[in-house]
Amino acid sequence: MPKKLITFGEVMMRLSPPGYEKFSQASSLELVYGGGEANVAISCAYLGMKAAHVTRFPDNTLGKAATQFLRRHWLSTEHVVYGDSMMGKYFLEKGAVHRPSEVIYEREGSAFSMIEPSMINWEDVLKDADWFHWTGITPAISDGAAQCCLDAIKTANKLGITVSGDINSRDNMWKYGKTMQEVIPDLVEHSDVVITSSRGIREMFDIGKIEDSFKSLAKQLIEVYPKIKKVVKKTRRTLSASHHQIQGKIYNGKEYIKSDMLNITHIIDRVGTGDAFAAGLIYGLLHYKDEEAIEFASAACALKHTIPGDVNMVSLENVESLMQGDTSGAIKR
Amino acid sequence: MPKKLITFGEVMMRLSPPGYEKFSQASSLELVYGGGEANVAISCAYLGMKAAHVTRFPDNTLGKAATQFLRRHWLSTEHVVYGDSMMGKYFLEKGAVHRPSEVIYEREGSAFSMIEPSMINWEDVLKDADWFHWTGITPAISDGAAQCCLDAIKTANKLGITVSGDINSRDNMWKYGKTMQEVIPDLVEHSDVVITSSRGIREMFDIGKIEDSFKSLAKQLIEVYPKIKKVVKKTRRTLSASHHQIQGKIYNGKEYIKSDMLNITHIIDRVGTGDAFAAGLIYGLLHYKDEEAIEFASAACALKHTIPGDVNMVSLENVESLMQGDTSGAIKR
Amino acid sequence: MPKKLITFGEVMMRLSPPGYEKFSQASSLELVYGGGEANVAISCAYLGMKAAHVTRFPDNTLGKAATQFLRRHWLSTEHVVYGDSMMGKYFLEKGAVHRPSEVIYEREGSAFSMIEPSMINWEDVLKDADWFHWTGITPAISDGAAQCCLDAIKTANKLGITVSGDINSRDNMWKYGKTMQEVIPDLVEHSDVVITSSRGIREMFDIGKIEDSFKSLAKQLIEVYPKIKKVVKKTRRTLSASHHQIQGKIYNGKEYIKSDMLNITHIIDRVGTGDAFAAGLIYGLLHYKDEEAIEFASAACALKHTIPGDVNMVSLENVESLMQGDTSGAIKR
Amino acid sequence: MPKKLITFGEVMMRLSPPGYEKFSQASSLELVYGGGEANVAISCAYLGMKAAHVTRFPDNTLGKAATQFLRRHWLSTEHVVYGDSMMGKYFLEKGAVHRPSEVIYEREGSAFSMIEPSMINWEDVLKDADWFHWTGITPAISDGAAQCCLDAIKTANKLGITVSGDINSRDNMWKYGKTMQEVIPDLVEHSDVVITSSRGIREMFDIGKIEDSFKSLAKQLIEVYPKIKKVVKKTRRTLSASHHQIQGKIYNGKEYIKSDMLNITHIIDRVGTGDAFAAGLIYGLLHYKDEEAIEFASAACALKHTIPGDVNMVSLENVESLMQGDTSGAIKR
Amino acid sequence: MPKKLITFGEVMMRLSPPGYEKFSQASSLELVYGGGEANVAISCAYLGMKAAHVTRFPDNTLGKAATQFLRRHWLSTEHVVYGDSMMGKYFLEKGAVHRPSEVIYEREGSAFSMIEPSMINWEDVLKDADWFHWTGITPAISDGAAQCCLDAIKTANKLGITVSGDINSRDNMWKYGKTMQEVIPDLVEHSDVVITSSRGIREMFDIGKIEDSFKSLAKQLIEVYPKIKKVVKKTRRTLSASHHQIQGKIYNGKEYIKSDMLNITHIIDRVGTGDAFAAGLIYGLLHYKDEEAIEFASAACALKHTIPGDVNMVSLENVESLMQGDTSGAIKR
Amino acid sequence: MPKKLITFGEVMMRLSPPGYEKFSQASSLELVYGGGEANVAISCAYLGMKAAHVTRFPDNTLGKAATQFLRRHWLSTEHVVYGDSMMGKYFLEKGAVHRPSEVIYEREGSAFSMIEPSMINWEDVLKDADWFHWTGITPAISDGAAQCCLDAIKTANKLGITVSGDINSRDNMWKYGKTMQEVIPDLVEHSDVVITSSRGIREMFDIGKIEDSFKSLAKQLIEVYPKIKKVVKKTRRTLSASHHQIQGKIYNGKEYIKSDMLNITHIIDRVGTGDAFAAGLIYGLLHYKDEEAIEFASAACALKHTIPGDVNMVSLENVESLMQGDTSGAIKR
Repeated sequence: MPKKLITFGEVMMRLSPPGYEKFSQASSLELVYGGGEANVAISCAYLGMKAAHVTRFPDNTLGKAATQFLRRHWLSTEHVVYGDSMMGKYFLEKGAVHRPSEVIYEREGSAFSMIEPSMINWEDVLKDADWFHWTGITPAISDGAAQCCLDAIKTANKLGITVSGDINSRDNMWKYGKTMQEVIPDLVEHSDVVITSSRGIREMFDIGKIEDSFKSLAKQLIEVYPKIKKVVKKTRRTLSASHHQIQGKIYNGKEYIKSDMLNITHIIDRVGTGDAFAAGLIYGLLHYKDEEAIEFASAACALKHTIPGDVNMVSLENVESLMQGDTSGAIKR
Repeated sequence: MPKKLITFGEVMMRLSPPGYEKFSQASSLELVYGGGEANVAISCAYLGMKAAHVTRFPDNTLGKAATQFLRRHWLSTEHVVYGDSMMGKYFLEKGAVHRPSEVIYEREGSAFSMIEPSMINWEDVLKDADWFHWTGITPAISDGAAQCCLDAIKTANKLGITVSGDINSRDNMWKYGKTMQEVIPDLVEHSDVVITSSRGIREMFDIGKIEDSFKSLAKQLIEVYPKIKKVVKKTRRTLSASHHQIQGKIYNGKEYIKSDMLNITHIIDRVGTGDAFAAGLIYGLLHYKDEEAIEFASAACALKHTIPGDVNMVSLENVESLMQGDTSGAIKR
Repeated sequence: MPKKLITFGEVMMRLSPPGYEKFSQASSLELVYGGGEANVAISCAYLGMKAAHVTRFPDNTLGKAATQFLRRHWLSTEHVVYGDSMMGKYFLEKGAVHRPSEVIYEREGSAFSMIEPSMINWEDVLKDADWFHWTGITPAISDGAAQCCLDAIKTANKLGITVSGDINSRDNMWKYGKTMQEVIPDLVEHSDVVITSSRGIREMFDIGKIEDSFKSLAKQLIEVYPKIKKVVKKTRRTLSASHHQIQGKIYNGKEYIKSDMLNITHIIDRVGTGDAFAAGLIYGLLHYKDEEAIEFASAACALKHTIPGDVNMVSLENVESLMQGDTSGAIKR
Repeated sequence: MPKKLITFGEVMMRLSPPGYEKFSQASSLELVYGGGEANVAISCAYLGMKAAHVTRFPDNTLGKAATQFLRRHWLSTEHVVYGDSMMGKYFLEKGAVHRPSEVIYEREGSAFSMIEPSMINWEDVLKDADWFHWTGITPAISDGAAQCCLDAIKTANKLGITVSGDINSRDNMWKYGKTMQEVIPDLVEHSDVVITSSRGIREMFDIGKIEDSFKSLAKQLIEVYPKIKKVVKKTRRTLSASHHQIQGKIYNGKEYIKSDMLNITHIIDRVGTGDAFAAGLIYGLLHYKDEEAIEFASAACALKHTIPGDVNMVSLENVESLMQGDTSGAIKR
Repeated sequence: MPKKLITFGEVMMRLSPPGYEKFSQASSLELVYGGGEANVAISCAYLGMKAAHVTRFPDNTLGKAATQFLRRHWLSTEHVVYGDSMMGKYFLEKGAVHRPSEVIYEREGSAFSMIEPSMINWEDVLKDADWFHWTGITPAISDGAAQCCLDAIKTANKLGITVSGDINSRDNMWKYGKTMQEVIPDLVEHSDVVITSSRGIREMFDIGKIEDSFKSLAKQLIEVYPKIKKVVKKTRRTLSASHHQIQGKIYNGKEYIKSDMLNITHIIDRVGTGDAFAAGLIYGLLHYKDEEAIEFASAACALKHTIPGDVNMVSLENVESLMQGDTSGAIKR
Repeated sequence: MPKKLITFGEVMMRLSPPGYEKFSQASSLELVYGGGEANVAISCAYLGMKAAHVTRFPDNTLGKAATQFLRRHWLSTEHVVYGDSMMGKYFLEKGAVHRPSEVIYEREGSAFSMIEPSMINWEDVLKDADWFHWTGITPAISDGAAQCCLDAIKTANKLGITVSGDINSRDNMWKYGKTMQEVIPDLVEHSDVVITSSRGIREMFDIGKIEDSFKSLAKQLIEVYPKIKKVVKKTRRTLSASHHQIQGKIYNGKEYIKSDMLNITHIIDRVGTGDAFAAGLIYGLLHYKDEEAIEFASAACALKHTIPGDVNMVSLENVESLMQGDTSGAIKR
């Protein structure tokens, strides 16, 4: 019986020029959909889990097409709600070598940003779930979104469902009047697994010093928020827009474990690779010991760099093969 | 020395699935740009006139790409202003036969809707122009846009420049607190040429009765607004989404003249055909007598139905040939 | 509470050259999926019904991608089964005017043709359904498929679910040793609604004479199979590959009612239009009286001719508008 | 044993914007190849004949790619010669309804225009052929091309091979110093079948008067050039760029026979339709009586209007079906 | 006078999502054709040799389109036979970095697998050939295919034509009842050149031990099958799906020669690279000494990794330049 | 107030197969436009300068479309002249790894090659410019082009405008009767900045010996042509068609300064990278000291390798970021 994951957050229309074109030369845009939390759900679904995503779309053809994207990629969409008329969007120009990829967001006033706690019945949504995952993007969008997220986490706690949060957030995303320092800690307090960075821990929780190692910071975080069982970090070394290196690290209250460093020499699409890592972590923690879970997460992350679009569509077999050290990518017939 | 036209209004990104696909099946969207007034300017530029468009775009890569579209299609863009961050957009699903084309607008909060009168120096913009054209869409967008439009018209009056207005508007477009009945008449009062419909005259100006002919309504309109010299109407018979008939009608204070009825049996793209009519009318009135001008306008309108995108790119030679009755579309080698 | 439809049958990969290209010039093929029964389910889903499709796909990436197509287009796929390795396929070359479209099937040995009755638990599949629909294609594929179909129909009868059958079939499809005359009557005997033609009635059931009208043949059919409540026919007049006329006819045991004749002057894709008719009929009979139901079915069928691919994605609003006589296809903003 | 056709003439690279785009909007061009005589050869090859084309291409990758196009479409290319460096080209912008298609040629200085009689050994080329076909385009290109064409015709005469000429030509094509009146008659004198028009006969041969019927002109032509056995004409009625009517007419020295008028209501690509007519005529005269041959030619011509590109790829079965009056284009499964 | 090569084997339709898409996201598939032996023939044809391929295709439009692909790429197809109705196919999902490319075959029941010895007259096919090439795939397909292959080889022996075999095969391909150990040795016995691997020699012929070097195994093979003159191996080091290294090795009964190692750092398409090696070897052995031949083969193989599709289209000039050590890929103007 | 650049030279239509296809497989060609000097102007325009290009196009739709390309990419085209009918063209097949890109030019007889000095009024063109740039390609095209170029340079001298020349040229380009040694020195004599190579200096000016360093050659060049203030060189190390290294070097009469070596590991399009270097140099010398200018030029050049097409569309921000050493290409949100 596959485990079931619930995620919550905005899903945006992603529009990008074909190949390496710039907007200044494009006459068509490739259309997919993506959002940090839904990306995690879809990744887990491709790995064999059950997954449902909760979001709010405009009540029109575009909102329906976005829902259809989620359904196509194996998500249950029965808890999606509809209203208002603007679809969140982001525009992506893909870079290479020394040229950075560039992202322009248009999400102010989106249907999702207008979400209110009364619109979602979390008891119903979470009733047969095993895991709930949130990210630091959602509470940054609007007060309503932040409240919905907190409601979800508290309901998950009540139902005994594991909660993970990927709390990477950027100051410049918080525009509705609250800061991340005011909002994130309440959400983290009720979470079991936290994906973050040294800087994230220092900035969001006022914990630790600049010279503290990630292990030390993770330890301090668990001391303050004792519900947390795992503090996890993904290290990315950006050699160029076409070549990254990835390594996962996990502190489980006792041990501090690092995965192998994976060398992604020919990047196809680096968007959503953090979400692939989170998905790999969730799947990994549900099915393996910590040592293997962090290898699985890193492998999933590495493989996502080769898939166009936001979402990781690799199979369990692909991830396991890389987790076990086969980096050859040798053709399968 | 070619005549120079100035237009003012929002230009939107137009995103549409390829061919006759619906959004529910699209994996890419075709990208062009369009807006009623800019469409008129571009049409006139392809006919050989000089033309500049005044608008406001977001101050980012997308705003620049939109500007580049206008430049590519021969417009001068030196008076475009930039600010804020949202690009106006519309999504178009192309219909056929009994299936209607469907349009979804996303223009609330766009950079253009935030325009303020102080942002544009109309004396400078209009200094060497021959004609200024506006439409009923612009004053519906925001108070700032309406004021800019009125400023432009008054400056044109001061400089002795002909003013035309295409005043078709829809009640449901007016969302910022004013009605079209409050705003449009002030703009029309200072215009020389008005494109409208029987219903438009009755609803916007409280002129005439339901049983009045267009000629009678046009006469009454001129009596109330004596600056108006021509009242023009385009009749469209919609046999199906793939087959329309077009006829132009003009009342010049003395005569009421109708063009031939043109039969567009295989429509490629019907968006912007009204703007092509307006452009044909402007070119026609500048270069021909009224009888020929209305034939020219109808011919330009008919030809636009065969061009993909919002804007009419046909040559003067094409329009003249159709105006003179050659409906054969025989291949040119 | 929307009504729920269950359908059963093969879904094939459809591969066709872009536009009007022939295979002799193609360097890519457009990929969608289709099959008579799934097409009906998807149409009904777009109209607002709940719908699930039961089929068998190869247990590989292609079978999953086909499942994803069904999910994307709103179907529930929880009862799809997997096994063997060949995907049914059809190749379509689209014609125009005097040039016929051409279809090449490759479905022998497909995963679906290997289906066995034990693979599907119909009690479970049908437990909360309102309607079951089958076609004459399924029993022609293999003995296993025919038996599954009969099991489904009998289970539906037991559960009090309405059964409809679209029994158009072609002799040359029956290759596994049985004839349509041996198999179809058993299936029809337990059906409530039958879509057929005069020739179909005469050939499959040995009922009526060549000079009998459809109404007379329908009457005779009901006399022999008294469970049947409606006998329905779609008349297609093929003026050219680009221009058809469609009219629906229904005999309900008392009245013989004809819809308006719809004139599809610019066909985009005629495949699946019969399925769109069947879907319209099912929706119509569930929501309207017979007079309106047959108009609804014809309107749905006509609209499908404008949608690329096998499946009808038009909205309830579109069909109702055409059913009520608006053939103009006037743009919706 | 299939009959063998030899053709001779320039083959150009054809570059055209996708769909109905204009060059002012194109970011890619569709690439095929075409030329009046090669188009005839390919059509005949698709009908089941053997066919070889003789031409001259630049000695580079582009010349090879053009050769590969001919090979792909069933021609023998063993007699193609190579030299110089410029590929003949034409640019095509496809029109619709009232908008004409527009063609821009770039063939001056092409490798073919540099051809010299010594480059081709016609005895060898024609040794096992049944038919040689030429058009009035080739002698208009250069003196060398005209001489090669005459050599071919004379060699064909010597070997007892039937010769047909499609002598439609335009004054503005003749730029190398000779006129069509000086060159064409010598070629026609040795031909058995001539495709032309009333105007063509009057202008090229100084035969007949403006009021003479085609039949009368054909008769006079045969009197002057007694080797001619059939004089053939294709009448095209151009209702719009999207809708033509086609009728074939043949005078065989005794009878004057007209085919049915075919109504091509939705044109896909009208280029090469005259060549499809010529090919149909050749095939028809080789396999049928004159009455059927002219129906076959008209049917082939009509079908070409539905095929993208210059060349007619329809099957013998398609043409025969239309020749026998089935204009329905009903789908073939 | 160019040398002539004959090859024999199945040619499949190859369908693959564009770029790096997975089947789960594709809405179109790129269409080319390929098969190990035809790939060799085409490569040799691009290098300047004459080449004909013998195969069997379904007797329909798809079989003709496949034939047209071979003709386009310079092969003679006069010995292709037609019958039955299924086209062999393979589906390819292209990988990158750690993600493997994945291939799904659908070739059971294909027209080629139904081939029988009586269908091909090898005396006629081989009458003016210089070389016959076969691979270990063909005898794995069906007993008929294996027999045809043996007939061809024996006829070649009789006519004094050099025979090469690329005997790499996989156990899981042999499904018709015979094993590779039963079939391959008979074919090898009559071959002059064998491409294989250490494991291939050990497994197929029960020759050598696990610790034997390739040179030693090659020597033992020649001792058992004295007709063999060259035993050749291509070593591939798979650093990732995007980066391989290639080296060729040849044992000619006296010397054991290795080519330079070529470093393919940015793979475009690795399918067919083994066939490009075989083609390079054939061309090389026909035109150079062994030392150069093995360099030529490696260079041809390396270059194929940069060509999309199954077949190597590089020119002789390209291969010679790389063979001579110019690895710079510097632009040619 | 941005600085204004004027450039002069041919702009060609560039036609290339999609991705890494060869002409032997292409069914469409990607269409952009390019030419060494216009590429420089466009690059500078994207960096924020004003720029106008002077050229001659055919007086037809293709010439207009080329003009529209320049306008789209921010150039002023008011000084473009039109006449004759042939568009210059080049065909590009993109290589990878060991496979070279291949270029075929078709520019003989082009509208630009027919240019005459009387067609351009340089006083008018250059009146408000700050910089004029020419390349060694223009004087190689025709005597008229060479004279126009010299006129432009002399007029620039008269008006006190800085002149730069990128004098790389190839012997095989000079076909109209003059050699580069006869023509280039006169142009260089009046130039302030010269981009060249050691070999260029030795071959064009008969200056220096094979063993002289670039610094020494540059010094000698300035001694002979004292108007020259900077002699600049771009060193390219071609590791493969997919991997280059770039370094800029400048001698300013006093110092010899080298930029960092930039490592372009995943080339997208290497055409126009020299022009991007020249543009970076012009922008750099106008806005920075020499040390930074040469870093800026190298950075601009490196970034162009990641942009499809001939022209560099990167922003000032992108170049400055790389100039300052950020080679990470880290995503910008």
